Amino acid sequence: MPHADPVLIALDWGSSSLRAFLMGAAGEVLAQREGGPGITALPQPGAEGFAAAFTAECGAWLARWPGLPVVAGGMVGSAQGWREAPYVECPADLGSLARAAVAVAAPGARILIAPGVLSRAAGAEGVPDVMRGEEIQLAGALALRPALRGAARCILPGTHSKWVSLEAGRITGFATHMTGELFAVLRRHSLLGRLMPEAPAAPALAAAGFARGLRLARSGGPGALPHQLFAARSLGLTGEMPSEALADFLSGLLIGHELLAGLAEGVPPGVPLALIGEAGLCRRYAAALAAFGAPEPLLLGNTAPAGLFGFAAAAGLVAPATPAQEIAP
Amino acid sequence: MPHADPVLIALDWGSSSLRAFLMGAAGEVLAQREGGPGITALPQPGAEGFAAAFTAECGAWLARWPGLPVVAGGMVGSAQGWREAPYVECPADLGSLARAAVAVAAPGARILIAPGVLSRAAGAEGVPDVMRGEEIQLAGALALRPALRGAARCILPGTHSKWVSLEAGRITGFATHMTGELFAVLRRHSLLGRLMPEAPAAPALAAAGFARGLRLARSGGPGALPHQLFAARSLGLTGEMPSEALADFLSGLLIGHELLAGLAEGVPPGVPLALIGEAGLCRRYAAALAAFGAPEPLLLGNTAPAGLFGFAAAAGLVAPATPAQEIAP
Repeated sequence: MPHADPVLIALDWGSSSLRAFLMGAAGEVLAQREGGPGITALPQPGAEGFAAAFTAECGAWLARWPGLPVVAGGMVGSAQGWREAPYVECPADLGSLARAAVAVAAPGARILIAPGVLSRAAGAEGVPDVMRGEEIQLAGALALRPALRGAARCILPGTHSKWVSLEAGRITGFATHMTGELFAVLRRHSLLGRLMPEAPAAPALAAAGFARGLRLARSGGPGALPHQLFAARSLGLTGEMPSEALADFLSGLLIGHELLAGLAEGVPPGVPLALIGEAGLCRRYAAALAAFGAPEPLLLGNTAPAGLFGFAAAAGLVAPATPAQEIAP
Repeated sequence: MPHADPVLIALDWGSSSLRAFLMGAAGEVLAQREGGPGITALPQPGAEGFAAAFTAECGAWLARWPGLPVVAGGMVGSAQGWREAPYVECPADLGSLARAAVAVAAPGARILIAPGVLSRAAGAEGVPDVMRGEEIQLAGALALRPALRGAARCILPGTHSKWVSLEAGRITGFATHMTGELFAVLRRHSLLGRLMPEAPAAPALAAAGFARGLRLARSGGPGALPHQLFAARSLGLTGEMPSEALADFLSGLLIGHELLAGLAEGVPPGVPLALIGEAGLCRRYAAALAAFGAPEPLLLGNTAPAGLFGFAAAAGLVAPATPAQEIAP
């Protein structure tokens, strides 16, 4: 049990998992629980399912510290979530998130749910873009890294990677790239996956496959991806690439396309670039950025707890954390 | 039963279907059977399965006309087929296909199987490309359309679309685009499909969605696809596009990328462009080509029987068909 008294329960509640954090007055994590059900895997449907999952994860904390405020971010606030918290528009910061938050009643608690963020279409063929959960990670990154509080570019790799522009602590624009989901569906459900063994490749083979995928991506012009993807089959069929390396080749090809588009505008000198997320995936992106000659990125881990604490403070549920210091992720 | 005496049984045997054609001396189809099992759906595995499927489709023809020669093209000649017929390299024509053909013994017949074609890597980041089955369709297109016998560009849309350069009746190079398979796996297995109703859209809505997908594809630079795909979600989530139109939007986006890459080199004036394949899909591609300002293509239907007849003639199994005339597909 924690030494300091907790002041907040913070929930990072996405499609596939629920992580709960018991937090102290300095914004520190006193205890955490991982592996609760995501919103697509609730024990029962509807509000009862959300309440049951919440109580299973946090009931003991609330029993010991009754009346703790609770905040939540992620897909729990989507149309398929506990209660929908409609998107706020760019530019967005913790203030606008807090003003548009919605609350639900749970056994022994009131839970304040953060909205997602919408980027309006720009240009004739522009389309809107949306995020839900990443805005909390971005707020955490801003809390932990003062270097990002001017102009900054953040990349949050994953199923739906986000490339985000920050200006003076606000989200001013972003683009989603379906890189992770493309990799998953192509590996599991397309003809490309049939040539790929389940076991991971030896490191040298994996690195060579990844690098070749990056190079092929970089060599292509507009529209090249549907053609280049077939290389993950033809290189295997012809024996030009060992089958063990094909999955890493596909990964490099897809991440390479994401980087081509994301870096198209360039990163102005002096504007820091940050990678936020799971360490292994961030290292993979850092290697790809280096191969593309991009500036070396800051590497941040899981910034969601710090972001949820900031959201609670912006909503007046806790006092702001001690003036931020540069904290290693 | 046919009036003329048959001289050949021709099999178009792919992954998902077996089509058998009973053909006369002029290269005409006297009778045909559709719906036999593709090589991934045989009644039993291995050579016995191939033989059983062949006998079920063609046994009655062979009983009435014993000793008819039999030819086959498509995935039946792949490593997962009845017997592997290794790829021949570009430039390839019916002569090189016939020289590299392999034979299998079936009940009451000897079956000559056509090889596929390999295009070697070109350039520093070039990768090899392969086709198997399309070379037969191309041979049929050349037999039916003398206009293609100089320089020509052929597009064979499908699961794995092929863009092929022909010179003097030979396949000199080609590129595969995984457009159809991308559409299928994204619709069936990705988050994008969840917003798409099963029922087809009303024609005007479908056309508008398709056109917007084409325009978005055309507006993008290198690497744009993983980002642009997310528009099929964000346009639906925000209500900017009716959900009924999203599948056609995705189709337009993917076909647009294929066209961007395929047309990148341009089609020289006077070089005919042809679409070969299923009529509905060819009309969709013709509409996309028009939107991209490409020359109007010739539209050819199923040219596989004519190609298989030409393959049999090149192998000396039948006399060449009467000097080719311009025959409507």
